[in-house]
Amino acid sequence: MAKVEPRVLKGFRDYLPPVMIPRRRMLERIERTFQRFGFLPLMTPALEYLDILTGKYGDEGETLLYRFKDQGERDVALRYDLTVPLARVVAQYPSEITLPFRRYQVAPVWRAEKPARGRFREFVQCDGDIVGSKDMAADAELVDLARELLRDLGVERFKVRISNRRVLTGLMEKIGVPAGTAEMGILRVIDKLPKIGEEETARLLREECGLREDQVRAVFEFLDARGDAASILERLRTLFPEGSAGRQGADELAEVFSILGDSAGSDVEIDLSIARGLNYYTGTIYEAFLTDLAGFGAVLAGGRYDRLIGIFRGEDIPGVGISLGIDRLLEGLIELGLLREERSVAPILVVVFEGMAPRAAAVARLLRAGGIACEIFPGQAKLRKQFRHADETGKRWVVIQGPDEAAGGMVKVKDLESGVEETVAVDGLTAYFTARGAAGAT
Amino acid sequence: MAKVEPRVLKGFRDYLPPVMIPRRRMLERIERTFQRFGFLPLMTPALEYLDILTGKYGDEGETLLYRFKDQGERDVALRYDLTVPLARVVAQYPSEITLPFRRYQVAPVWRAEKPARGRFREFVQCDGDIVGSKDMAADAELVDLARELLRDLGVERFKVRISNRRVLTGLMEKIGVPAGTAEMGILRVIDKLPKIGEEETARLLREECGLREDQVRAVFEFLDARGDAASILERLRTLFPEGSAGRQGADELAEVFSILGDSAGSDVEIDLSIARGLNYYTGTIYEAFLTDLAGFGAVLAGGRYDRLIGIFRGEDIPGVGISLGIDRLLEGLIELGLLREERSVAPILVVVFEGMAPRAAAVARLLRAGGIACEIFPGQAKLRKQFRHADETGKRWVVIQGPDEAAGGMVKVKDLESGVEETVAVDGLTAYFTARGAAGAT
Repeated sequence: MAKVEPRVLKGFRDYLPPVMIPRRRMLERIERTFQRFGFLPLMTPALEYLDILTGKYGDEGETLLYRFKDQGERDVALRYDLTVPLARVVAQYPSEITLPFRRYQVAPVWRAEKPARGRFREFVQCDGDIVGSKDMAADAELVDLARELLRDLGVERFKVRISNRRVLTGLMEKIGVPAGTAEMGILRVIDKLPKIGEEETARLLREECGLREDQVRAVFEFLDARGDAASILERLRTLFPEGSAGRQGADELAEVFSILGDSAGSDVEIDLSIARGLNYYTGTIYEAFLTDLAGFGAVLAGGRYDRLIGIFRGEDIPGVGISLGIDRLLEGLIELGLLREERSVAPILVVVFEGMAPRAAAVARLLRAGGIACEIFPGQAKLRKQFRHADETGKRWVVIQGPDEAAGGMVKVKDLESGVEETVAVDGLTAYFTARGAAGAT
Repeated sequence: MAKVEPRVLKGFRDYLPPVMIPRRRMLERIERTFQRFGFLPLMTPALEYLDILTGKYGDEGETLLYRFKDQGERDVALRYDLTVPLARVVAQYPSEITLPFRRYQVAPVWRAEKPARGRFREFVQCDGDIVGSKDMAADAELVDLARELLRDLGVERFKVRISNRRVLTGLMEKIGVPAGTAEMGILRVIDKLPKIGEEETARLLREECGLREDQVRAVFEFLDARGDAASILERLRTLFPEGSAGRQGADELAEVFSILGDSAGSDVEIDLSIARGLNYYTGTIYEAFLTDLAGFGAVLAGGRYDRLIGIFRGEDIPGVGISLGIDRLLEGLIELGLLREERSVAPILVVVFEGMAPRAAAVARLLRAGGIACEIFPGQAKLRKQFRHADETGKRWVVIQGPDEAAGGMVKVKDLESGVEETVAVDGLTAYFTARGAAGAT
């Protein structure tokens, strides 16, 4: 058979063990954080009927769907996010889901995007959502969750930025843009501002969205609002009359900050330039950034979607959620030097003395039964080769049992760090390693 | 917008929280077991170039691939298993992978099969493989791993059945069937024996594989060998002459049992009727079954593939692995009543007193900072409604802080099991719940 060139598709990646070991630990931590907040795990299929996914993300999102006909000629697509599948689930199992419902899902999504730094075609999203509450307490809770997710992963320097779609609707009203398609087009251009810069944004607003120069100026002036939450909220209240969409957005933002109270600290701020590109957001919108990686893009994002579930259910059920992009965050942590590659999940190699494979297997079995992780060299090889393997795979100890040790119910243990060699009774081997901190998973 | 009917594709499933909570725990245990055996985590993309996957599984497998053209007109397919992607990875990164290499991968695979009891079109495989060793010590180690994976999941009654493809090749030689395509066709029919029964198997062997009646009889007589490993091995040695493929297979089987020694016990046995349908196996083959669910099919399977990596590498690198089908196992455990649905991951609901949302959020924040998992009711609602929510979502305790308690730095805690209500100082709340076993993840 002709050799097939081993390769991966553009925008897709293999995670080899040195990165996958800490990535695994990150994913486990994330699930623990979700559970600490009482979020319940959910899993949905990678493939959905195409019509479940279309009409929710906007035109641009839809061109990025991996779609095809399956063996039964059904139109199907790989999921683009975890929010639309959640909306489907909530609508599909009304009697099995108690509202308000908080769920998390950690799973890959697929988007045929142009690959770029920190942007992949397959990436794992870690989503937490609260469904069935219109109350800003839910929106505030997700800010808490966002911060704890990042902190539990060892990220200390980050900003969670909040805005509200209604504030942007208010702005559109102010400058005389009708709600609907025109508004959504402008929001999507605004969403690209950090990526494409002010000049290109202004050009698109003029040429693609048809805004006049004074309208463009008004947009920039608005987005550029700086200051603490209180002063921005004050300004919004002045700008938007009572009863307007903009005022409602401002009041909702104020409510979120009121519930967060002092805990908001300096890592939560209002940023009116956040727009989010997806169609389904209706209220609060979030983004979170690594402070030390400007221009890297958001590692977490989300928002409120009070009309998405209604598409599947007939009646609206409100929802709000955040999504942590673990793979982009991982890239960021590597760039920042905050993530260290690792070579091993087991600190011990059981070396096999010639002709003693069954005894070596028994020693490994004993250690594992005692909760000590170990690798056994799979086969016969010169001892020097096996010791080199221990070294190359990052082992701390080597255990070996030759005929003499076996006869006396002993093994030899070599500490590769100190070079010290000891003879230890097989009976006491688990205790020996437990005392040296070798027990437990990585 | 017209309502879209919420539904999932045939053969695909949503895992709602009551099943997903214990499933999550199973997946976490599985990863810990792999790590205890020193297996390193790996992750590969869901989508591969089509030619990476074709030509390895056999004709039947190939018809089950979900394949399509992506946006760049590339022929791509969803992965069918985790073994072929591993073979690609080993060939692709020779300088980054130290042989012998043991890796695990826990990930979904996709097969457009006819859905049936315990058979799905998307299911998670948990694979452990040892690459770079021809030694039967590796094959024996995987038997150990298979048993520990099942035991760690609480499965006590199972059988790991072993055979060797070379023994079947020996049988084919004996009855005069040439190696290659004809042999593989017969193996695939034999593989279906437990599913389709003896009569249908005999018919297929005659009509599709062209065997004579005496050949069919010889096949059944061979497959039906019963007894302990020693007596089956003795019989194989008598049947197959020194230097034949059949004898090599028998010797390899004997070597695996020699390394397992007494530990093999009664839950490992030789079963010559195991064939495995996949083309790539060359030696040892494994299957494991739940003793109490006859006819349910294998929950774990695998084997040795010494020529698969060569397709990508040019030179052969031996490999052997097992794959645990967590989703079929989960179905089995549910059928056996060994898996209990769960409603909650957090034992506490923080109830929100009207107008006191910021205080309630602060109490939740405090508990979580102390490692106590809690849910907070997301919004304002009548206390009765919030208590009912606690009950419906399986909470053990409710915490509430009204204005009086807040003024005194206290909260009320109600134990929903005993009905007892206590007033507890906010400062001591974490300790209060830790003492009652509420800390830690589920």
